[in-house]
Amino acid sequence: MEDIHHTCQWGTGESWGDKSTETGMSRLALSDADKSARDWFVETTKALGCKVTVDAMGNTFAVRPGLRNDKPPTFVGSHLDTQPTGGRYDGILGVTAGVEMLRVLADNWTETEYPVGVVNWTNEEGARFPMSMVSSGVWAGSIPLETAHNLREVHPGTATMKSELERIGYLGSTPASYEAMPMAAHFELHIEQGPLLEMANKKIGVVTGVQAYKWFTVKVKGRDTHTGTTDLKSRADALLTASKMILHSHRLATANSALASTGILNLKPGSTNTVPGEVTFSLDIRAPKDATVAKMKELVLRDFHKIAAGEDVEGSNHGCTSGLPLTVSITEDFDSPATTFHSDCITSVRQSAHSILGPNMAMEMTSGAGHDSVYASKRCPTSMIFVPCRDGVSHNPREFCKEDDCAIGAQILLQSVVRFDRM
Amino acid sequence: MEDIHHTCQWGTGESWGDKSTETGMSRLALSDADKSARDWFVETTKALGCKVTVDAMGNTFAVRPGLRNDKPPTFVGSHLDTQPTGGRYDGILGVTAGVEMLRVLADNWTETEYPVGVVNWTNEEGARFPMSMVSSGVWAGSIPLETAHNLREVHPGTATMKSELERIGYLGSTPASYEAMPMAAHFELHIEQGPLLEMANKKIGVVTGVQAYKWFTVKVKGRDTHTGTTDLKSRADALLTASKMILHSHRLATANSALASTGILNLKPGSTNTVPGEVTFSLDIRAPKDATVAKMKELVLRDFHKIAAGEDVEGSNHGCTSGLPLTVSITEDFDSPATTFHSDCITSVRQSAHSILGPNMAMEMTSGAGHDSVYASKRCPTSMIFVPCRDGVSHNPREFCKEDDCAIGAQILLQSVVRFDRM
Ligand SMILES: NC(=O)NCCC(=O)O
Ligand SMILES: NC(=O)NCCC(=O)O
Repeated sequence: MEDIHHTCQWGTGESWGDKSTETGMSRLALSDADKSARDWFVETTKALGCKVTVDAMGNTFAVRPGLRNDKPPTFVGSHLDTQPTGGRYDGILGVTAGVEMLRVLADNWTETEYPVGVVNWTNEEGARFPMSMVSSGVWAGSIPLETAHNLREVHPGTATMKSELERIGYLGSTPASYEAMPMAAHFELHIEQGPLLEMANKKIGVVTGVQAYKWFTVKVKGRDTHTGTTDLKSRADALLTASKMILHSHRLATANSALASTGILNLKPGSTNTVPGEVTFSLDIRAPKDATVAKMKELVLRDFHKIAAGEDVEGSNHGCTSGLPLTVSITEDFDSPATTFHSDCITSVRQSAHSILGPNMAMEMTSGAGHDSVYASKRCPTSMIFVPCRDGVSHNPREFCKEDDCAIGAQILLQSVVRFDRM
Repeated sequence: MEDIHHTCQWGTGESWGDKSTETGMSRLALSDADKSARDWFVETTKALGCKVTVDAMGNTFAVRPGLRNDKPPTFVGSHLDTQPTGGRYDGILGVTAGVEMLRVLADNWTETEYPVGVVNWTNEEGARFPMSMVSSGVWAGSIPLETAHNLREVHPGTATMKSELERIGYLGSTPASYEAMPMAAHFELHIEQGPLLEMANKKIGVVTGVQAYKWFTVKVKGRDTHTGTTDLKSRADALLTASKMILHSHRLATANSALASTGILNLKPGSTNTVPGEVTFSLDIRAPKDATVAKMKELVLRDFHKIAAGEDVEGSNHGCTSGLPLTVSITEDFDSPATTFHSDCITSVRQSAHSILGPNMAMEMTSGAGHDSVYASKRCPTSMIFVPCRDGVSHNPREFCKEDDCAIGAQILLQSVVRFDRM
């Protein structure tokens, strides 16, 4: 808890309570605040006897030697970057629990069979550079280094991931690759970010996989015109059309038991008395099964083109004068298929949970959010441990996880690693 | 035409054709480009024998003496500021036609009975500082000077009207008031900005009044949450709710023969995987009658609160899972009641049009857009002259008015002023 609150001095966000620790976080990837948190991670793990390696994506690996060092380390990993209005636990708990593991091993003069490590992955959130888990994705060979390096900030600015890595001194010389930095396994402790554990009164989620998701950019083009002289029939209103699309994506999500969300929307030219001629918005589609996400994509593509053309798709025009046709282009920016974790790792977590809490305090579950464990799992046995967070709220300054729950999670993380190391 | 194209070197916008004059304009009020255009106006009118006065809103009055000077001047007025993606005619035609009037009077050694003048009003568009016609509003005593001076830029920035007037050297010492700068009459030549003249094959609109409008800021508050872990029922999605409101405002406009438009929308926090907790958007409501605008306001207030609370207003939720309740606050920022122009001025325009074009080329009409003539009309006899613009498109780089039509408009403007001066 000390490490969490100490490192949250860098990028402190909105306050929601009386205590100095009752604030959110705003530590976008590769910002100055992120650099300070990274520097802390490097110094602290070095002081605990680790060798630290930074790769070409700024991923930072701290490795503690084992009795034998002829096999790759078992890793604990998560991320220190946050959402613009994020909390103190998402990602941060996982990294600090990894550091705590190193400290407990050191304090108790414990030697592991093989090396163990902790990794801080870069830009997991995808909030600043619009691909989530992008740097574990490069490590796994799933995302080309160039694509990642060239990613631009979502909000007006000229910075790329590469220019920001250089600027803060975290463009490492080691290739970002599972070949240069192999792992025996990857364990990640994380807050659930949803309400299921709290509702079920359980302390631990034994995470067996992660749902599928895709991110799209939708660009609607109409025509700038005067709001006072252009009758409704003569408009090609890109914002009205985008509004219909956003509503319709929710209609489709409801009908298909999927999720649809728009978190970013920009329009042009942005004047009270000009009908917007151009709107660009993000679309995040999720569902447990790949087939559902694929179907949602198909329906979105089909229906958004119809809505742009002015057709009434399931009441999208209901009661509104129809205007002139518009055009829409939809690009898929990011794809994370459904993930199933490795039974050896799941077993380690389950056994650790049972040994610490007894048989009734854990439940198996799927993650609604993506995590670096998704990409780690492509190259080594992987699984995750969830702890409950208040009201299931995350990506919000009020995100909160009780001290006891953080501690239980950290204990189970340590034990899972040790069990896997022995196995 | 030379003056139009010469002054359009300051703030040149997007190009849409091959000729160097085939571009839009982007000359926001009190920008550096606006300063250059203002400097040109001051120098040119001084060289034509005018006395130039700048008031506390930067309104710039150029007055040419008459045979007698014991009564106020008859003015021609419009504006040199543009939309962010505006054209070369909206406002600019009116001011340059006024300068042309001064030139024709000077070239022909013509003396008027009383003085005549040309005024360039500040921030007519309301695009940068979000009140249209704000400086003629202060002149008329309808808007307090403080309110106007304290207006902030709509797009992130810290500039106010006052700080920008100071910065570009146009914070004049003369009070912005009809008492300090009285007018015998105010005539304004403007492109129609709508399609009616073109559709009717007429060359001149004899403008008898301006429709009513109000501007609102709508702020929707929900809750930031994770897009992947928050089921649709547990969301308070401010963007989904704003989308429903935007659609509903069009439904209400359709049902009430009014116009509803949203030109600005900003959301927080702006991350692909965070459900937006806050959305702020502009709402521009117009109709020929004050009563219709008042009714629209009443319906918007009633229904937006219902939509925020999660009620299904005329299908606003149709087919979407309903989430948690949100809150909405709506403030009225600007109100321009329906305006009727003065019969003496209307008569001057009608007679001038008939004498130049014969009886069949002009039609009486109401303006859909607001103009400085709205506020001028509160303190002196006023009317306007419209000329057709291509496809009725304005607030768009492609806005275009034929040279001949500009010239006809300028001739009728000159003659209307001379007729009024004699009257
Ligand atoms: N855990 C987390 O919030 N990750 C961000 C990636 C996602 O959008 O699910
Ligand atoms: N003429 C013009 O575009 N004026 C702007 C004021 C309005 O919004 O109508």
